[in-house]
Amino acid sequence: MKPYKEMTREELLRERAAMEAKYRAFQEKGIKLDMSRGKPSKAQLDLSNGMMDVLNSSADMVCEAGVDCRNYGIMDGIPEARRLLADMSEVPEKNILIYGNSSLNVMFDTVARAMSMGVCGHTPWAKLDEVKFLCPVPGYDRHFGITEFFGIKMINVPLLETGPDMDMVEKLVSEDPAVKGIWCVPKYSNPTGTSYSDETVLRFARLKPAAPDFRIFWDNAYSIHHLYEDDQDVIPELLTECEKVGNEDMVYKFISTSKVSFPGSGIAAMAASEANLADARRSMKYQTIGHDKLNQLRHVRFFKDMDGMHEHMRKHAAILRPKFQAVLGTLESGLGGLEIGTWTNPKGGYFISFNSLDGCAKRIVSLAKEAGLVLTGAGATYPYGKDPHDSNIRIAPSFPTSEELQQAAELFVVCVKLASAEKLLEK
Amino acid sequence: MKPYKEMTREELLRERAAMEAKYRAFQEKGIKLDMSRGKPSKAQLDLSNGMMDVLNSSADMVCEAGVDCRNYGIMDGIPEARRLLADMSEVPEKNILIYGNSSLNVMFDTVARAMSMGVCGHTPWAKLDEVKFLCPVPGYDRHFGITEFFGIKMINVPLLETGPDMDMVEKLVSEDPAVKGIWCVPKYSNPTGTSYSDETVLRFARLKPAAPDFRIFWDNAYSIHHLYEDDQDVIPELLTECEKVGNEDMVYKFISTSKVSFPGSGIAAMAASEANLADARRSMKYQTIGHDKLNQLRHVRFFKDMDGMHEHMRKHAAILRPKFQAVLGTLESGLGGLEIGTWTNPKGGYFISFNSLDGCAKRIVSLAKEAGLVLTGAGATYPYGKDPHDSNIRIAPSFPTSEELQQAAELFVVCVKLASAEKLLEK
Repeated sequence: MKPYKEMTREELLRERAAMEAKYRAFQEKGIKLDMSRGKPSKAQLDLSNGMMDVLNSSADMVCEAGVDCRNYGIMDGIPEARRLLADMSEVPEKNILIYGNSSLNVMFDTVARAMSMGVCGHTPWAKLDEVKFLCPVPGYDRHFGITEFFGIKMINVPLLETGPDMDMVEKLVSEDPAVKGIWCVPKYSNPTGTSYSDETVLRFARLKPAAPDFRIFWDNAYSIHHLYEDDQDVIPELLTECEKVGNEDMVYKFISTSKVSFPGSGIAAMAASEANLADARRSMKYQTIGHDKLNQLRHVRFFKDMDGMHEHMRKHAAILRPKFQAVLGTLESGLGGLEIGTWTNPKGGYFISFNSLDGCAKRIVSLAKEAGLVLTGAGATYPYGKDPHDSNIRIAPSFPTSEELQQAAELFVVCVKLASAEKLLEK
Repeated sequence: MKPYKEMTREELLRERAAMEAKYRAFQEKGIKLDMSRGKPSKAQLDLSNGMMDVLNSSADMVCEAGVDCRNYGIMDGIPEARRLLADMSEVPEKNILIYGNSSLNVMFDTVARAMSMGVCGHTPWAKLDEVKFLCPVPGYDRHFGITEFFGIKMINVPLLETGPDMDMVEKLVSEDPAVKGIWCVPKYSNPTGTSYSDETVLRFARLKPAAPDFRIFWDNAYSIHHLYEDDQDVIPELLTECEKVGNEDMVYKFISTSKVSFPGSGIAAMAASEANLADARRSMKYQTIGHDKLNQLRHVRFFKDMDGMHEHMRKHAAILRPKFQAVLGTLESGLGGLEIGTWTNPKGGYFISFNSLDGCAKRIVSLAKEAGLVLTGAGATYPYGKDPHDSNIRIAPSFPTSEELQQAAELFVVCVKLASAEKLLEK
């Protein structure tokens, strides 16, 4: 089939009619499927069921610090959990602080603390006339949600194949003291699957911010979430790179086991310099006596160490890989050569990022929804929900069964073709 | 033995010398005991061990809402946990919001939200020239820690036998719009064990605050933590009383299972009007996708309902009661009639509150510490750590074994007598 844009008006009209018929057929099937979020499937959750009773009634509940994990105490997290998440974060134990069940909560609290208390003794952001964050786009909607909630002005920065446009980042960060942060998902980025290049990470480490309280919010959500055994992305460890050039206070790293064990019931951590962790502890000691140590112990007893965690991630990959391949195969066979969409082929993470013709994303998502397939809202991958090209759509293949996924991908292809034909016929 | 103040100087000198000798004997024993916090004992923690594997590998993990508790979702908490904690809070389910593992964290976040975002659309407290909280004293140090951390000015209000001095509360709340909150532990109060009288609760419900965003922070930490089966305090339910007079938005109730199941690994909740909960959700939806539902399910499966929880609390009481009685017995036999101290005899909660002669509390705590017994710091029960009379000491009998506790109580008696003799000899 030839590219849509090379079609005559008549050919496009025929194409649209054909797609309308296919679309109606899908509507009649009564599909009801939610692909809006990056949720693990039941089969993936089952992988961690052994964690449920690894702490049984007769288990030893005392952690390495000699403290009964069933009682109050140990604000920083139990030593064995600190070690596990330090290894996962590729930092020394002294640079890790364990929090509760979700890294999103850690990020929210970190911005909240900066707003009300300031960063390491600097003026609270809430007292400044303007605070800005750089937002590589497309990106993660919940990041943008936090900064929007606190009234922080978000500035789009294009996410290139190597990571954020570092020329732009360097310029904005070094020239504007109102720029206080940047949201980054450096590995298997949400939604594009992009892993930052070595050069990008090194340029991050060497930033010379105008604001002394500028921080890189480095959300390493998919650090060990590979899809392939023999083709994995590796990125330099940012805190180490920052330390090399005396910039160790410039980064907050966030990590969690949400997509390793159980979403919402995992353990989360922040990795940062000792000065930044001391700053975090200054408020944490009023906020909690200590996070859930039993859940920390449960995770350590189940995974044991990073070898155990990597082994576990291979099982996740074995479930996820065919789902990604099914969607990618359907996109290729249905849309290949038509020049009405491009998509990413990630080596890890949870998403495929699809770019339609400009001005088609909302229509595609709306068509899918009306046929029973809920996708992430068009625009969600941009600050304020505003995709300037109305073209980016995040596809989350993890949750549906393979059968559902095949149907969803085929419906998606029909929606893309229908919306594209409509758009081209408008001209 | 006659009261110290009736002793001659020579008698006091002899008494001091006798106590110094006893004190040295204690020092030689090499005691090492921490009674600083209200921590459950190992025997109490063992009561909940069945919760550890109530969710075993083959358990049904789907909650009543049809959602797999191992996955993302259900920000408000699973229905069965909402019902259990609503029952525990004595409010309808619509008035409960489940949070994470600790009510301290909920209170911190609630104050943090009021500071940065304001309460229900009112000006953020951080933007006001002055924010004040009323603090019934003696009270809970971690409450005072939160308000001090956020720069809120704390005003002492005497805690009478009926609860806070309501004449003073009514006057301050109705006259000063800078008064935005009051910390209350209405039942078996920390540290005095006081339960507010019916009249006090009704007067709280009928407050006419000058500030529309004034809130009562009602920390019902010991709502079901009775020591005696046949002599329990009952207080009116505040939210209901507030509703009766159209004041339902004036109260935040906090509750947790920290001292029911496991401290730090329990579940916590806020009970409030629907308007207040909607206000809380406005930030919560950016902070988390949902709290730990597996832990919620674990609690419901273990306790089943309030009957189960009350049954469980009777087991706690059976362990705690003899400990309280041992301390009270030792205080009575060692200090009765000397008029150098008064103490409370609570029907529930976790503490005995001791009042020494003015100016002796710091010395008593210091003496105890030097002999190996760590008590809650003198002054901790007052805002800014400043007890104007230097007389209140919080005794936490729960954690030590009965044998340790007996020794600790005897040492405490010696420290009180020694410090009192020293003080009276100063004159």
